[in-house]
Amino acid sequence: MRAEIINVGTELLMGNVVNTNAAYLAKECTKLGVGVYYQTVVGDNTERLEEAIRTAKERADLILLTGGLGPTEDDMTKETVAAVFQKQLLEDSTVKGEIQEMFHRMGKAEVTENNWKQAMVIEGARILHNSCGTAPGFILEEQDCTVVLLPGPPRELKALFSEQVIPYLESRQDAVFVTKMVKICGVGESSVETQIKDLIDAQTNPTIATYAKTSEVHIRVTAMGKDEAEAKKLVKPVVKELKNRFGNHVYTTNEDMDLEECVVKLLLKHELTMVTAESCTGGLIASTIVNVPGASAVLKESFVTYSNKAKRKYLDVSKSTLKEHTEYSAKCAKEMARGAALMNDADVSVAVTGIAGPDGGTKEKPVGLVYIACYVKGKTYVKEFHFYGTREMIREKAMIHALDMLRCTIMENYVS
Amino acid sequence: MRAEIINVGTELLMGNVVNTNAAYLAKECTKLGVGVYYQTVVGDNTERLEEAIRTAKERADLILLTGGLGPTEDDMTKETVAAVFQKQLLEDSTVKGEIQEMFHRMGKAEVTENNWKQAMVIEGARILHNSCGTAPGFILEEQDCTVVLLPGPPRELKALFSEQVIPYLESRQDAVFVTKMVKICGVGESSVETQIKDLIDAQTNPTIATYAKTSEVHIRVTAMGKDEAEAKKLVKPVVKELKNRFGNHVYTTNEDMDLEECVVKLLLKHELTMVTAESCTGGLIASTIVNVPGASAVLKESFVTYSNKAKRKYLDVSKSTLKEHTEYSAKCAKEMARGAALMNDADVSVAVTGIAGPDGGTKEKPVGLVYIACYVKGKTYVKEFHFYGTREMIREKAMIHALDMLRCTIMENYVS
Repeated sequence: MRAEIINVGTELLMGNVVNTNAAYLAKECTKLGVGVYYQTVVGDNTERLEEAIRTAKERADLILLTGGLGPTEDDMTKETVAAVFQKQLLEDSTVKGEIQEMFHRMGKAEVTENNWKQAMVIEGARILHNSCGTAPGFILEEQDCTVVLLPGPPRELKALFSEQVIPYLESRQDAVFVTKMVKICGVGESSVETQIKDLIDAQTNPTIATYAKTSEVHIRVTAMGKDEAEAKKLVKPVVKELKNRFGNHVYTTNEDMDLEECVVKLLLKHELTMVTAESCTGGLIASTIVNVPGASAVLKESFVTYSNKAKRKYLDVSKSTLKEHTEYSAKCAKEMARGAALMNDADVSVAVTGIAGPDGGTKEKPVGLVYIACYVKGKTYVKEFHFYGTREMIREKAMIHALDMLRCTIMENYVS
Repeated sequence: MRAEIINVGTELLMGNVVNTNAAYLAKECTKLGVGVYYQTVVGDNTERLEEAIRTAKERADLILLTGGLGPTEDDMTKETVAAVFQKQLLEDSTVKGEIQEMFHRMGKAEVTENNWKQAMVIEGARILHNSCGTAPGFILEEQDCTVVLLPGPPRELKALFSEQVIPYLESRQDAVFVTKMVKICGVGESSVETQIKDLIDAQTNPTIATYAKTSEVHIRVTAMGKDEAEAKKLVKPVVKELKNRFGNHVYTTNEDMDLEECVVKLLLKHELTMVTAESCTGGLIASTIVNVPGASAVLKESFVTYSNKAKRKYLDVSKSTLKEHTEYSAKCAKEMARGAALMNDADVSVAVTGIAGPDGGTKEKPVGLVYIACYVKGKTYVKEFHFYGTREMIREKAMIHALDMLRCTIMENYVS
C-alpha cells in the first residue's frame, strides 16, 4: 500500500506548531508495512487543499488527512474531500448526540451553533467516533484510493488512529508485520553500526534499521509473515543475537518502554528505594523518574545541591574533598552519592556533578566534564564523562547516562 | 514572495525524525513577510524529488530545500536541482579546502573519497559556506524562481539560514518587517481572544496573531514598513495597548525570551536567591531554571520531597498540618514554601504539592489538584489549581504556573 500524508493547518505552514502528527503517522505506517511516499502540509485554504488531495489521489492508495475538522469556517477538510470524491454531507444523529454529551461533560450548558457542523458526515464513509473531542474522523473507501480523515489535536488523532485505524489497516494487509525495538544505551552510533554491519548487509526479512537518539541507539527489527506467529518466529533469533552482542547495554526490546520506566521497574522488582543528588542536571534526573506513574513508590527524595554549602549540609561531602579536588571531581561525586543514600536511608542513589556551560570551564576542567556516581549495596561507583553540545544537551546526556549507570549497577549487584 | 519548503529525507518519511526544520524555516519566513504555501517531504528518491521540485517551480517564487547534501549516494538534492534547472556541477577549490580543514579539525587524517562529492557546486549558484559541517548550501537565482539548498542537520541549517539566507531575503524584500511577541501567562486562550477581538478585527498593518502554548498565549504583532523605523513605529502602540490590557500577565515582548529566563533575570535584578520545594513536579521547576545559563547565581538548592517524612525533615512542615489537611493542601504548600526559604537562608521560594495522577485521586482531592505557594519578603502566598490532562501535562502546567506565580509575586513585592 502506498500512502501519502496531508496535514492541514495554517499554524503548521507558519511554523507555530511542529508537525508531530506527520511523524507519528509515518512511524505507525512503517510499522504496518505501509510505505509513505509523500507528506504535504497545506494551510486552511480550500483551493490548495483540493489540489493536494487531487494530486495524492492519482499517486497513492491511502491518503491520511489531519486537521481541518473543527467547528470554524476555516475548517474545510471534510467539505473538500466530499467535493473531490463527489459525496454529500449528511447530518448524523449519533454524532449529534455525542457532541451534546461532550459539551455536557465539559460543563457547558449549550452547544454553540457552529459545533453542529461537526455532526455532518461524509456519505458512505465509516465514522470514527472521537471520545476525546467533538470532531469525528472518517474512513472513505473509494475504488482506487482510501481516504482517512483525522482530527488535528495530537491526543485525539493518536487515540482515533491507534484504536480504530490501525486495526482497519491491519485487516486490509495480506501480511502481518511484527516489530521489536532493541534499545541500547551507552554504545556510540558508529560502534553499533560496525557491530551489526553483517546483520544489516544480510537483511531481507526481518529488516533491520538503526535510529540514533540522544545517548541511545534504537534498532528496529521488523519481520513480515503470513500470520503473527510466523512473523514473531522470524524476529526472535535476530533480537536474541542483538542481545548477545550488546549484553546489558540493551535496556528493553519494547518500543513503548523508555529508560526511566526500566529503572523504576527494576527498583520495584528488587524493592529498592532511591534518592538523587544533582548538581549540573539540576533536578532533571528526579523529574524524569517522577514522570513514570508510580514513581513515588521508589523515589524517596531528591536534592539539587548547587552550592558547596548544600553539598556539605545535605550530602555530607567533606570540606577537604571540595577544597582539594573541587566540586567537579570523582571524589565529590562519590561522596554525594554515598551521603545522599546514607543520610536518607535509601537503598541506592545516583549523583551528578559537572560543568554544563556555557561558562565555568577551564583548561583542566572543561565544559562538558561530568562525574556520575552510584551507590548500590554499600559500594560506590563513579565514572568520568566528556559530553559536548549546548548546556541543554550536556544536561540531557548526563541525565540519560546517570539513569543507565544506575540501571547497570543494580543489575550487576542484584541477581535477577 | 510565495515560498515552498521541500524537506528531503527517508528518515522524515518514516517518522524517525520530527520535521523541526520545516517549522523553523516557516517561522523565519513568516517573520520576513514571506508567505509559505506548501511544505512537502520526500524521501531520498531522485524521481519523486524531481517531481516535487518541478511542481514547486510552477507555483512558487522561492523554494527552500533541506537535506540530501551529504556525501553518500543517497544524497541527490544538488544533482536533482542541477538537472531540473539544466545546470552543470563544477568542483570548487575553496569548498575543497574547507572540507579538508573540517576533517583536520575533527582529528581525522584523511578525507574519505565520497566526501569530495560535497566540493561539487551548482554552476552560477551562490555558495553558502558551512562552518558547522562539510556540506555547503546554495542559492540559485533563476528567472522566475529562486532555489535555496540547505543541509539537513538542524544546527547547520539554522546557522546557514540565519547568517546568510535571512540577509539575502531581506535585501530582496521591498518592505521591512518588524515583529514583537507579546507572551502572556495565566490567562486562558479564549479569554485572550475575547479581550483582543476588536484589535484583531481592525488589523491591517500591523497584523496580530495568537498562538496557544501550554498554559501560555503568545501574540505576534508584525508591521510592514518601508524601513525599520517606520515598521517599529507601527508595532509600538499595539504592543503598548496589549501590555495595558494584560498588565503583569505579559512576561516579555521578546520572541527569544522564555519564562524561566525572565524569572532568573528578575531574581538577578533584585539580587534574590531562591529555592524550590517540589512534590508532584519532582524537580521539574529546578531543572527548568537550571537550563538558563547562569542560574547557579540565583538557585541555591532544590528539594524533591515526595515523602511526608522528607517534608517534615527538610521543609519543617508540621505533623498536624499533614495529619489534619494531608500533603495535598494549601496549608502544606505554604509551610513547604516557608520552610524551604527559612531553612536555607533563601530570599524567595516556590513550593508545589498536588496529584499528577493517573492514580491517587479521590472525590475530594481529584487528579489535577495542585497547590502552589510562594514565599517572598516574609510573606507566603498560595493558590489552588485544577489542571487536566496526562501526568506529564499536569506536571508541566504546574511548573509553568509556579514560575509565573513566583514572577508575579516578586514584581508585586519589589518596586522596579
